[in-house]
Amino acid sequence: MATRKEHDFIGELEIDDSVYYGVQTFRAVENFQMTGRRLRDYPFFVKAFAQVKKAAALSNKEVGVLDPNIADYIAKACDKIIAGEYADQFVVDMIQGGAGTSTNMNLNEVISNIALELMGHKKGEYQFLHPNDHTNLGQSTNDTYPSSIKVAAYAKLSDLLKSMELLRDELLKKSDEFKDIIKMGRTELEDAVPTTLGNTFNAFASYIKSDIEKITYARETMSYLNLGATAIGTGINCHPNYKNVVDKKLSEITGVNFKQAPDFIAATQDTADFVFVSGALKTAAVRLSKIANDLRLMNSGPRCGLGEINLPQMQPGSSIMPGKVNPVICEVVGEACYEVIGNDTTIMLCSERGEFELNAFEPGIGYALFNSITILENAMKTLALKAVKNLTANKEACLKSVLGSVGIVTAFNPHLGYEKSASIAKEALATGKPVGEICLERGYLTKEQIDKILEPKNMLNPSMVR
Amino acid sequence: MATRKEHDFIGELEIDDSVYYGVQTFRAVENFQMTGRRLRDYPFFVKAFAQVKKAAALSNKEVGVLDPNIADYIAKACDKIIAGEYADQFVVDMIQGGAGTSTNMNLNEVISNIALELMGHKKGEYQFLHPNDHTNLGQSTNDTYPSSIKVAAYAKLSDLLKSMELLRDELLKKSDEFKDIIKMGRTELEDAVPTTLGNTFNAFASYIKSDIEKITYARETMSYLNLGATAIGTGINCHPNYKNVVDKKLSEITGVNFKQAPDFIAATQDTADFVFVSGALKTAAVRLSKIANDLRLMNSGPRCGLGEINLPQMQPGSSIMPGKVNPVICEVVGEACYEVIGNDTTIMLCSERGEFELNAFEPGIGYALFNSITILENAMKTLALKAVKNLTANKEACLKSVLGSVGIVTAFNPHLGYEKSASIAKEALATGKPVGEICLERGYLTKEQIDKILEPKNMLNPSMVR
Amino acid sequence: MATRKEHDFIGELEIDDSVYYGVQTFRAVENFQMTGRRLRDYPFFVKAFAQVKKAAALSNKEVGVLDPNIADYIAKACDKIIAGEYADQFVVDMIQGGAGTSTNMNLNEVISNIALELMGHKKGEYQFLHPNDHTNLGQSTNDTYPSSIKVAAYAKLSDLLKSMELLRDELLKKSDEFKDIIKMGRTELEDAVPTTLGNTFNAFASYIKSDIEKITYARETMSYLNLGATAIGTGINCHPNYKNVVDKKLSEITGVNFKQAPDFIAATQDTADFVFVSGALKTAAVRLSKIANDLRLMNSGPRCGLGEINLPQMQPGSSIMPGKVNPVICEVVGEACYEVIGNDTTIMLCSERGEFELNAFEPGIGYALFNSITILENAMKTLALKAVKNLTANKEACLKSVLGSVGIVTAFNPHLGYEKSASIAKEALATGKPVGEICLERGYLTKEQIDKILEPKNMLNPSMVR
Amino acid sequence: MATRKEHDFIGELEIDDSVYYGVQTFRAVENFQMTGRRLRDYPFFVKAFAQVKKAAALSNKEVGVLDPNIADYIAKACDKIIAGEYADQFVVDMIQGGAGTSTNMNLNEVISNIALELMGHKKGEYQFLHPNDHTNLGQSTNDTYPSSIKVAAYAKLSDLLKSMELLRDELLKKSDEFKDIIKMGRTELEDAVPTTLGNTFNAFASYIKSDIEKITYARETMSYLNLGATAIGTGINCHPNYKNVVDKKLSEITGVNFKQAPDFIAATQDTADFVFVSGALKTAAVRLSKIANDLRLMNSGPRCGLGEINLPQMQPGSSIMPGKVNPVICEVVGEACYEVIGNDTTIMLCSERGEFELNAFEPGIGYALFNSITILENAMKTLALKAVKNLTANKEACLKSVLGSVGIVTAFNPHLGYEKSASIAKEALATGKPVGEICLERGYLTKEQIDKILEPKNMLNPSMVR
Repeated sequence: MATRKEHDFIGELEIDDSVYYGVQTFRAVENFQMTGRRLRDYPFFVKAFAQVKKAAALSNKEVGVLDPNIADYIAKACDKIIAGEYADQFVVDMIQGGAGTSTNMNLNEVISNIALELMGHKKGEYQFLHPNDHTNLGQSTNDTYPSSIKVAAYAKLSDLLKSMELLRDELLKKSDEFKDIIKMGRTELEDAVPTTLGNTFNAFASYIKSDIEKITYARETMSYLNLGATAIGTGINCHPNYKNVVDKKLSEITGVNFKQAPDFIAATQDTADFVFVSGALKTAAVRLSKIANDLRLMNSGPRCGLGEINLPQMQPGSSIMPGKVNPVICEVVGEACYEVIGNDTTIMLCSERGEFELNAFEPGIGYALFNSITILENAMKTLALKAVKNLTANKEACLKSVLGSVGIVTAFNPHLGYEKSASIAKEALATGKPVGEICLERGYLTKEQIDKILEPKNMLNPSMVR
Repeated sequence: MATRKEHDFIGELEIDDSVYYGVQTFRAVENFQMTGRRLRDYPFFVKAFAQVKKAAALSNKEVGVLDPNIADYIAKACDKIIAGEYADQFVVDMIQGGAGTSTNMNLNEVISNIALELMGHKKGEYQFLHPNDHTNLGQSTNDTYPSSIKVAAYAKLSDLLKSMELLRDELLKKSDEFKDIIKMGRTELEDAVPTTLGNTFNAFASYIKSDIEKITYARETMSYLNLGATAIGTGINCHPNYKNVVDKKLSEITGVNFKQAPDFIAATQDTADFVFVSGALKTAAVRLSKIANDLRLMNSGPRCGLGEINLPQMQPGSSIMPGKVNPVICEVVGEACYEVIGNDTTIMLCSERGEFELNAFEPGIGYALFNSITILENAMKTLALKAVKNLTANKEACLKSVLGSVGIVTAFNPHLGYEKSASIAKEALATGKPVGEICLERGYLTKEQIDKILEPKNMLNPSMVR
Repeated sequence: MATRKEHDFIGELEIDDSVYYGVQTFRAVENFQMTGRRLRDYPFFVKAFAQVKKAAALSNKEVGVLDPNIADYIAKACDKIIAGEYADQFVVDMIQGGAGTSTNMNLNEVISNIALELMGHKKGEYQFLHPNDHTNLGQSTNDTYPSSIKVAAYAKLSDLLKSMELLRDELLKKSDEFKDIIKMGRTELEDAVPTTLGNTFNAFASYIKSDIEKITYARETMSYLNLGATAIGTGINCHPNYKNVVDKKLSEITGVNFKQAPDFIAATQDTADFVFVSGALKTAAVRLSKIANDLRLMNSGPRCGLGEINLPQMQPGSSIMPGKVNPVICEVVGEACYEVIGNDTTIMLCSERGEFELNAFEPGIGYALFNSITILENAMKTLALKAVKNLTANKEACLKSVLGSVGIVTAFNPHLGYEKSASIAKEALATGKPVGEICLERGYLTKEQIDKILEPKNMLNPSMVR
Repeated sequence: MATRKEHDFIGELEIDDSVYYGVQTFRAVENFQMTGRRLRDYPFFVKAFAQVKKAAALSNKEVGVLDPNIADYIAKACDKIIAGEYADQFVVDMIQGGAGTSTNMNLNEVISNIALELMGHKKGEYQFLHPNDHTNLGQSTNDTYPSSIKVAAYAKLSDLLKSMELLRDELLKKSDEFKDIIKMGRTELEDAVPTTLGNTFNAFASYIKSDIEKITYARETMSYLNLGATAIGTGINCHPNYKNVVDKKLSEITGVNFKQAPDFIAATQDTADFVFVSGALKTAAVRLSKIANDLRLMNSGPRCGLGEINLPQMQPGSSIMPGKVNPVICEVVGEACYEVIGNDTTIMLCSERGEFELNAFEPGIGYALFNSITILENAMKTLALKAVKNLTANKEACLKSVLGSVGIVTAFNPHLGYEKSASIAKEALATGKPVGEICLERGYLTKEQIDKILEPKNMLNPSMVR
């Protein structure tokens, strides 16, 4: 095995010369053996970081502090990483001490060595292009790392939003398909008054719409970056014009409109916007889980449950009970939601623990946040395509429950008052007689009146039958 | 209004002479206006703290550092507080800065002034008996406050355990009452194989038994105290024999066997045992909530749900839907459980935040922990007496669902194998035919064999019919 | 004691005639003994609910379904409650089963009996004005209860925002006062590069600004109501024009612009907007806690800590250590934040648990949400007035740490490169020599260059000294 | 590519004949694309499941329901998996719907095909050995899956305990090494009274001891299994003696004493023991995080912080600040702890959501629990070896802070009373004079008395200097 020697503040190390990362990455791999999940398992994050590094190099070139030739080689190296090359070189554990320094250095080292080779040099010949002095020029982990997390989060939130639109649309299709299927509404799991299955799915779509709005708002907080803040926000070692150039470059590279954070000191130390984003994801998880659970309840049976809908059969349900089919998609979606909610706790803790000019626990935030967004995206898409798209309704079962119910006595209220209606309900529950029949027997209303009042469709729109 | 003057390190204050608390309590009331919940709203905590103070006074007397006469008056004052007198004098907000110093001083001041009056002096004549020099002698907030929380928690956990035994017993009664009611078992909300309603309630009782064990174990961690540790565990200003006496005194006063913590330094700064206790409470909350939710599901209907049981009717269920009765007890129990789980987060945060020789956030722990234990005790008792005790079963509904189900095809497995059984299930689901009929039609088994295999009771005990 | 008889669906009860609530409230008090916190402990909620009831009565009058005379008496009764009268009549526990029915009925009953007396009738003479048929006309718990929670939350969030503005302003004043106090910036608790105390407080103010924005956005979700949705969103028993009138009335009464929710079915069953609001509160709690903790760290000492600032002395810090003063305000603020974060868990659980057309656990949400907003409001105000307003800086201590630090070697980077600078740092750490001296000894730069580079103010603005 | 055809209840599929898993695994891979983490990434879980399958086969042989030849081949196939072979065949996502059915079938299919090959048959020739009828004989996902999670959790908890013992021992070594280093104790971050660095590390060791006890207790709950419970606990399709044999077999295979759960119905549906275990892990995470944070604080500096200890330098601390070394190990340990605490939320949610006879969300529990145990094990080990083992103390810095402190005035209390002592403290803080000097000036005590009282070692043991 060919090797090369690299050194840092701590000392010298002999490194396998085939790898593009260097001594600092090497130490980080040794130091951080926690999750088993490495940068390379989050390619969208590596991509985002390379985009930031490219923007930095081009900005340094533009403000005149970086040799244009070197800048261009750095940019070319970044392009290769952005395109997905060298993916296996990003080996640091996703969680790490040092507030992301090891991730930044993994990028700096790999970019530098790719660039060195492109220049015709050998890996490790940092005298020509140095990971810190050139690739990291005018930068700090403390501005590039949080910014890269935001760039990556922005991109993944956009993917998530697309999967939410997909689910919303599938729900709306079902809402339309089921708009005439009358079913019993339930409050507190008890029979209430009639609704339609279309209403139910339309409400689910409304949930998703509401969350699309909130996540879109939250995503916007990810567009304010502290590039140029360097170590603590004072911009030490960074050219004063750099910060006015770099977001524009990055916006061109990414197609997203990134902007300067209003207070660089605050932006460098404060991570609570991630808590806010996670709060929006949690909100969406709560709603998604509610949908999944209602689908499971409506699908329950086939004979000893509600049996109002049929989820598509995805796989045998049991290793012991033949013919059993379970709502597996709804279940896994629920688990995904609970992952998101668990991650919200982690993100809060990491964020709350920051001290002074920097939050040391930001890698913990990035890890949990990326996991949340990814799994929620998967869950939305999975529910849309594997549960909602092909589900069918049991029209007869839905209608039957309405016709026999006691809850429709509610419609007598405006005519008889609450107390008489309650007394009819009581008799109906005790005897099993339909409420209309009791009302007629007691001579409260005529048969025509009763029939009109109790016609399910008259209970579905907000008018009082008089 | 008669007043008296008191002073402390900060300065002098004029205080309404009718109150028994003094300058430090007064400042604390000003400083901490957070929850609106005061010490006096937690009388069991005030009682526990007075027990600790009494034990301290008697121990100081025994080791010879406190004038016996003064010690006895302090003890008498404590006895009055333990008996519930002067309850309105404990006015500090339950959450507070200072790691509980204000609570300790509220006790020290009230005790001292009661004792002064008993001695024939006036309130505020601290030259005869001083809140710090006598009532707090050989003590610190940092040993008396955590110890008092533990004494109070121990007592309340014992109350909780009693309410759990009550619930367990009511569940067992129902298990016995329902032991012959056959019903469909459901896995993943889908029809599975038969069980009995007795099994269901017996399992609920098993839940509670399991949690009684765990909470009993966790309660034991509350019996190790750091009395004598004073400020940071080194026991500064405390007589060396005090710590060998005080737990014994306290055990006599409380009837609980309190012991010295094995490491006073650790015991003074570490609050994670509260996290552990809260984890046990959360475990119990999860199980209790599961019971409450299963009861709600079994009670669902009356006509469009499962309708397997009838929860007692506690109140009208709706302001608009006459005759509607909701499972209100199960619902409020669920909410109580979610309070407990929320408090668990608070307790963890307060505990995790401690630094060095003391945890400054311990009042936050005490507040949340007491709320958790109390509400869980209420929830256990409420469910036992207002939901379980008087609930009834719908025997016919339970049985009917078993007879028509497909899931019982599982019993054919050992005879036909999984694949043939699955094929019967498939046909049954498609046609609505009973599985036995299909099996007979296909000539797989004789009618006698089928009848024997499908007899519900043969599916209820762990034997293979051959 | 004079009594009156009232009855409901469950049966008849004899009630103390001096109370304004009736049979349903009475049952609820019996049924729900959980938190010990009653409606009357949340007067802003009672007020909001009365505002909703008044708006409902006036709307019913306007659309022609309620006798104008009765409507006006209901409105007058509501006015009295809004003004704070009859506060002690709201006795139901804040958490309760029935999705808030008991709260709604407590309002309906008290309003009706007040109105009856105003009309010259006796309490309980419901034939003239009935809690359900008149006061609750065209309403359901399921639309009035969530709407009232939102009205109350909106009002309290507005109070919270005011206290945040107060804190922001105090922080900005300090930022200005401390703008020339140079101090060491710290990343990961390690010496980094210089900053100013003004920067620090300005960043804290930026935190609050960011949260004001987010909470303002979140508050807006509280302005979409489902009044007119009645039981499940279909508007059964409600006049079709009611929903077009009622929000306008309510806006007039409250001075807040309330609007119709876009989907009444969704709005009646979905509570996740509360999760979103709580997420915003949690975000603010995380930032507030970070401020409080940084203040504690900067205040640490007086001699064995950082000693950069002096928090105002609020009370003696210890019952055993004379002269000790603790950062009690920062501590209680931290505890308050952890309450908010714990409540966030509770709110999520209650919200996630809803099924079908209604969320039965909404009272749990209201309880936790109101507690969160209130305590956060208290915490913001307390920190502003009792910690920030009167804190002072230790200018010399701040400066001294900068002058002796190694971190300022960072400023050599653009001149010497990362590796040489690192080598200077290494020597400085080993020998204790100032970095400038080492640089000079090594002949890297002239004395003039070094002095200019290391002048603290040159490290504070984002320019590279060349 | 050679293929084979397999079919299930849903239909027929053509499968790459090189793989050992079959149709059901194949569908599960399609259906569940959530975390990107597969069974094979958790080899200890695959191993545990194979141990359970082996125990089942041998038990079925012993009770006479499985052909001994087939049983032996199944056992041999399991042995290969236990030895780590075929690791890549376990491809299902760790979270999944179906309560683990897909995991069970992945095992059943791979075991069956390995066994078939060992028998001389081809993969897929299930007529000779069927995944359901033989490998899964007398079993259900609902007993084997939870049991396998427990077997795996037990093993990993044992690994965790070993890493805790390692940390405890390293802490104890430091406690011994530092037993004479006097330092200032701090309460609420403020100077309190003297302690030793040895005390500090001994307290940390006490934390770990406490958690070893608790986790050992919690681990015991993992040893009660429901093997033989089959689908819902009634043991349908399982030979009645099987349950009396299988735990013994499993104990022999694993070396752990596994036992029958006391109530099979409860054990099959209830997952709250995992919540309890997670609560114990969370408790340990809270304590571990406290240690890591105290280490960071004591290490803060090098010049502008406390500088009491020196953590070993693991890697360069900054990409911009040369020579900066950060407490990266403590930081990553903190992040690991926050992962554990986040997972606790997920586990609680999955557990709380179970309905009726089974918890459908158990795969979510397993995933989060395994992640928690693994990362906590890594964190304990990492802190032990990379932070504690080689850290050193700054003896002079420690002592210096004690000598100049005001907090030592506490030692005057028993001699002067609280008020005089407080007055000395006040003067010392205002003037900077040592407290002893002031005491002498005021003539309260002689120089000899003062010197004796203030000698640090006299403040370290729980005695009152008289």
